[in-house]
Parts: sequence; structure tokens; C-alpha cells
Amino acid sequence: MSLTVFRKSHFNAAHRLYRSDWDDDKNKKVFGKCSNPNFHGHNYELEVGVTGEIDQETGFLIDIVELKTIMKEEIEDYLDHKNLNLDVPEFKDLNPTMENIAIFIWEKLSAILLDRYKIVVTLFETPRNFVVYDGN
Amino acid sequence: MSLTVFRKSHFNAAHRLYRSDWDDDKNKKVFGKCSNPNFHGHNYELEVGVTGEIDQETGFLIDIVELKTIMKEEIEDYLDHKNLNLDVPEFKDLNPTMENIAIFIWEKLSAILLDRYKIVVTLFETPRNFVVYDGN
Amino acid sequence: MSLTVFRKSHFNAAHRLYRSDWDDDKNKKVFGKCSNPNFHGHNYELEVGVTGEIDQETGFLIDIVELKTIMKEEIEDYLDHKNLNLDVPEFKDLNPTMENIAIFIWEKLSAILLDRYKIVVTLFETPRNFVVYDGN
Amino acid sequence: MSLTVFRKSHFNAAHRLYRSDWDDDKNKKVFGKCSNPNFHGHNYELEVGVTGEIDQETGFLIDIVELKTIMKEEIEDYLDHKNLNLDVPEFKDLNPTMENIAIFIWEKLSAILLDRYKIVVTLFETPRNFVVYDGN
Amino acid sequence: MSLTVFRKSHFNAAHRLYRSDWDDDKNKKVFGKCSNPNFHGHNYELEVGVTGEIDQETGFLIDIVELKTIMKEEIEDYLDHKNLNLDVPEFKDLNPTMENIAIFIWEKLSAILLDRYKIVVTLFETPRNFVVYDGN
Amino acid sequence: MSLTVFRKSHFNAAHRLYRSDWDDDKNKKVFGKCSNPNFHGHNYELEVGVTGEIDQETGFLIDIVELKTIMKEEIEDYLDHKNLNLDVPEFKDLNPTMENIAIFIWEKLSAILLDRYKIVVTLFETPRNFVVYDGN
Repeated sequence: MSLTVFRKSHFNAAHRLYRSDWDDDKNKKVFGKCSNPNFHGHNYELEVGVTGEIDQETGFLIDIVELKTIMKEEIEDYLDHKNLNLDVPEFKDLNPTMENIAIFIWEKLSAILLDRYKIVVTLFETPRNFVVYDGN
Repeated sequence: MSLTVFRKSHFNAAHRLYRSDWDDDKNKKVFGKCSNPNFHGHNYELEVGVTGEIDQETGFLIDIVELKTIMKEEIEDYLDHKNLNLDVPEFKDLNPTMENIAIFIWEKLSAILLDRYKIVVTLFETPRNFVVYDGN
Repeated sequence: MSLTVFRKSHFNAAHRLYRSDWDDDKNKKVFGKCSNPNFHGHNYELEVGVTGEIDQETGFLIDIVELKTIMKEEIEDYLDHKNLNLDVPEFKDLNPTMENIAIFIWEKLSAILLDRYKIVVTLFETPRNFVVYDGN
Repeated sequence: MSLTVFRKSHFNAAHRLYRSDWDDDKNKKVFGKCSNPNFHGHNYELEVGVTGEIDQETGFLIDIVELKTIMKEEIEDYLDHKNLNLDVPEFKDLNPTMENIAIFIWEKLSAILLDRYKIVVTLFETPRNFVVYDGN
Repeated sequence: MSLTVFRKSHFNAAHRLYRSDWDDDKNKKVFGKCSNPNFHGHNYELEVGVTGEIDQETGFLIDIVELKTIMKEEIEDYLDHKNLNLDVPEFKDLNPTMENIAIFIWEKLSAILLDRYKIVVTLFETPRNFVVYDGN
Repeated sequence: MSLTVFRKSHFNAAHRLYRSDWDDDKNKKVFGKCSNPNFHGHNYELEVGVTGEIDQETGFLIDIVELKTIMKEEIEDYLDHKNLNLDVPEFKDLNPTMENIAIFIWEKLSAILLDRYKIVVTLFETPRNFVVYDGN
């Protein structure tokens, strides 16, 4: 009997889209106003789903307080009120598109949760643009 | 040509998380403030999806009024403004976690709909915590 | 130059509507299923607005972290995961309608904030039912 | 490494549910008030997901501006502020149920995107009723 | 001790913006695509607020079930699944802009509620466009 | 007969809270993580209300397309995908708190609209924190 439990969270961050090995014109051409040199930012909304078997004793798939804590310590504390390009080492040479941020979050959570659960990450960059990644 | 049609609904209920075969200390330790003896409550948001073939004559997968009526009679009328632990026989000896409530709803709807459709149930306990169950 | 700064928060609680000096039939007649003896519950959404002059030095009307902390300590910690009728002394003899809860919240926050700000409280009992109170 | 990127959009349209080869009584019996001869209408909310491989150079699955433009030109400009029954040729002899509209949108987008991506369409007819179609 | 209690509701309707005493060109010029001759439509979201004194006996400003019933009988049953221009007599010679619909709703509810309460009507024509009217 | 018409919009921007005449320690002490030197960012949601008399001929208080265009040209194009501290001259020496941004928006729109309407600006910095300013 397999279910998926979801927890929502959020963080606020600055970023710009660009590649350091491209000049400004090419960055501007490919990434448009998202490559503005002085950065812009978003309220990222994060939804993490964990899939597995229910614990018949507690009726929990996962203690939601545990999931909330992992998400806070691994993701929110690491990304909230940060400049993704400058403050987060993983994005030093990786373009912080919502796709790459979602993959990063999935991998960071997998190190802790993947032995017990399948994981799916949904990341909203704006209320109209979002991405889903499940490791496949 | 298979689609999934979804209908949203809601109900308000009280509950507490606990096992009657555990003492208060153990319930408190495992379930935290959710085991408060005098109960607390939620506005549960329910989303039911039914998957099947479209009826070429009507263009309906299911008459949404039929689905709405089934959800009202089977789930809302049964759970709304109730104490899940005390008023709902199925949770007399079953911990009313959101996981168990979702499974209960899925089974109650399956008795009516499963011969014609696959069913998926999404249940929000709070705007930030929810669970998905599809019978697998 | 006067503005209003708002902060949203929430708490989950059980309650029932009834008057102990009325018999069950009268409670049932006036309050309907909301008077169910075993309680039901809600995810209450709370919105607190504070009106005042902007501090020219900081550009803040109020430090939102201060407002968040006051709301947490005074309201969330006091009401969250509680049974309003049984666990909250102020509702021992006062019917916990959304109107009375909003007035209670306004008065509790006023003891701390009213010397500096005008206060307005919006309380959602469900996504479709809410009340606004500003002390007048 | 496969992800799904989603973009939300909307359009406002009038429609009625009916079959021209049925008389008014039968239409009324099957489709209820949705068959009102003078039409009614909706704010349709549309969510399009495209699944594929991430482009390692840009970090994009798809340039969201391209997806936004395709959705605008193919769907919004074609359906917004229209009467689906009278103004949209595809629904001249096809009942504009949310199921059929979702299939129509999926097919129109597939002509452009299906060689590069898998596509999933979610269409909300109201905040409580919606349908998902992925071409299978 | 004065409060305002709000109840949300909705209805789906078709309309077009135009004046019968103007020719098509002038209607098109002033109202744009909203004057499309075959109509378009919306999911109107309605929020009604009633302001008054709290009843010390019940703790209610108004029984929300009464407000819900009035809104259903006076507004939803009258406007839902209708063509505002063709099916609603009040808009036969009155342009059904969101402003005029809000005034119409305010006046219809005032006939029943204004002797006991002040009334405010908020009407969303789309999630991004709305109007507030309080009779002043 | 006076009403208020509202239009919602949004922009994404980076900012930090700080005063250049304070040292880093004092900025950190007063503004906390919001003073992170490399900036963070938000999806700002903007709601502009204009109050005035209805035009009896059109049934409009304001042509919402006009309001949408003014908001786009004056606010969105000016602030979207910008760094408020570095790219927007008005915040060179003014701390870009949500209070100051709301006042700035109100003043920029007033230059165009105030001779015809009263204006109210609501600005959400996050889904839980927002500010209202009406020029008084």
C-alpha cells in the first residue's frame, strides 16, 4: 500500500541566468532580461513528495515534522535570502535555471531520503512557471 | 483515448492522532501536539480524479454532477462537521492520519466507481501538507 | 504618511458552537451541525494589519519579524492544535464563533500593539467564510 | 535526465453543452443547465507541461518564453473572448465539454511540440472542476 | 462592537459589452474584444460583506447559513449559467460591465439586508480584475 | 455612485535592505538576513485600486485595458527583472522596504491618475507579507 506525502515550503532568492564562458551579448540573446547583470529574484515555492509504504503502527508514511525539518535544514537554510549565483557553491559554474535548481534540490534531499522513499520535487519560480523532477 | 477528470470538495472535522493501546506519554512522544486529548481540527480539501475513456456521444468522461453527488453523499455527508475519532466507526481503532483518511476515502469511492474508472484521491490536511493515493 | 502592514498566519483548532445554558435541542436548532457534541475543526487563516507612520530611518512601519513573533507567541502558541471550548479559558463561557474569536485575537494583540498602531484582524474560518474586526 | 516544465495561462470563453442532433428536451436532460440555449461562460485556466531532456548548455528544458508564445498564438488568441460553439470551427459538430477542449488543445500543441517533447494538458473549467490529458 | 462578516460564492455566465444604440464599429472601438457579437464568459467570484453589531446571545453577526441562502436564491440562481445580456432583464438596456453587475448585486441584496446591515460587494470578473461597491 | 476597480499585476526583482551610512554590523542587526550583501529577491504581487464615479455611457469606472497599460508601462517595465538597489534611481538612497516600494508605486501612478481617481496600492512581498498605501 503505497502513497505519496507532500510538504510545501518556500525560499526567496536572487539570481541571474548566464554562462561565464559567453559574452554579455550572447547571454542577453539567449536568456533575455533574465541575464540582467545586477540580478533579479523570486519567491520560490517548493513542493516535495515522498513515496513509500505506510507504517501500519503509526499510520504515517513519514512523520511530516521530520520531512519539514529536513526541507528546512537542507534547502531553506541553504538557499533562503541568498544570491544563487554568488552565495551557493553548486551554482558557481551551473546556470541557476529552475530546472537546475530542481535537480539540485532533488539530489540534496535524495542523499537523506532516497534509501527509504522515492522523491519528486516541484519548484515554482513564479505562480505561472514551474518544473517537476523525480530523478528519472 | 483516456483522460482524468477531477472534482474538488471539502469537509471540516476534528481529530487527534493517537493509539488507544499506547499510554499518553508514548502518544505525545510520537504524535506531538497532534495527540492533544481534546482534539484539534482541519478544513480538509479533497480532490478526486477518475480516469477512463471518454463517452463519444456526450463528450463526458463522467457527468461531473454525478461525481459531485457521489462525493457529497459518500464523503462530505459522512465526515463533515464530525469528530473523526469519535463519530466515524472506521477510525475507532484506526489512527486518523491524513494517509489513513485518504485510503478510507479511496476505498469508499471505489465501491461505487472502480468498475468503471481508476481513482486517485488527493487530500489536503492543511494548505502545506497533503497526500495522494491511487490504490496501488 | 500612514500605511498598513499585514502579516498572515494560521492555526488549526477544534470547536463547537453552543451555549451551556441552552439544551441540546435549542443548540441544534440555532447552530445546526456546528453544535455537534464531539466537535469539528478548522484551519483558521489569520491576517493581522497594523496601521501607523513609517519610520523614516529604517523604512519600516513595523519590523515584520517583530509582528510575526508577537502573532506566534500571543495567538498561534495559544490556539494552535487546541480545542477552543475546552482548552482556552476565554471561551469557557463564550461561544467560539469566528466573530468572537476575531474579537479575542484583536484584544490580545491590542494589549501589546495598540499604543503604537491601529489594528485590524481578518479571520478565515473556511476559504469561503471570514470576518473582519478593527476595534470599532 | 528528464524533467517536465509547466506554464500556466488562461482564456475566457462562452459555450453551451448540446448536440444539434438531439432535441432541446434531451439536451436539457443530459446536460442540465449547461445546455442553456443562450450560452454561459468560464475563465478557463490552462496548464501545459512539456517533458524531455534538459539542454546541458543552457540549463533549459525549453525556453519558457517560447512555450509562452506558442500557447498564446495557438490557444489564447484562438479561444479567448470567443464563443466556442459558434466561433471555433473545431467545435461546430463537437460538444465543447472540458474533456473535448483539453483534447483539442493537446492536439493543437502536439503539431508543434510533439517531435521534441511529451505533452500534458490540464484544463480548469472552474476552480473545482478540471481535466488532465496526455495523449494516451 | 461592529464587525463585518464575509461569504464567498460564484457563478458562471456569458456576456458581451456593447450598447445597442451604437453601431458595431463604435462598440468594437470602445469595448474591444469584449464586444464580440457571439459573447464570451467568466467564472465570476463574489464576496459579500455585511457589517453590523454582534448578537451577544449567539455570538453571530449574521447566521452565515442565512447569508449563504440569500446569496444563492437572489444572485446565484438568478445569474448562474445565464447569458447576462439575453437572459437577465436588468441588463437588457444596461451594459453588463463588472461595475454594473456589482451595483446590481448590491441593490438586489440591499432590498433584503439593508435594514439590518451595511453591505459591501466585491466581484471578480477574472482573477486579475475586480470591483468593490458599498453603496456610497 | 462611487466604486473601486482593481487590477492585479506582478514583477520579479532583487533587493537588499540596508543603509549605506550604517556599517555592515548595524545593517545586519536591524535588517537581519534581508541585508545579505549579495541581494535576494521576490515575486512582488501588485494590486492597484482606483476609486471614482462610474461613466454612465460605458458602464466603466476606468477602461481596465488603460489601467493595465499604465501599470505595465509605469511599474512593470520599470521594476521587473531589476535590482531595486542598483538599477532603480529612486532607491539609490532609499531603503527598498515593501513600505517604500508601495509609496513609490503610489506616487508614480498618482502623477497620471490622481486628477481623475483616488488610488490605493497593495503590494505583496511574499504570500504572507504585504502592505497597503492610499496616499493618506
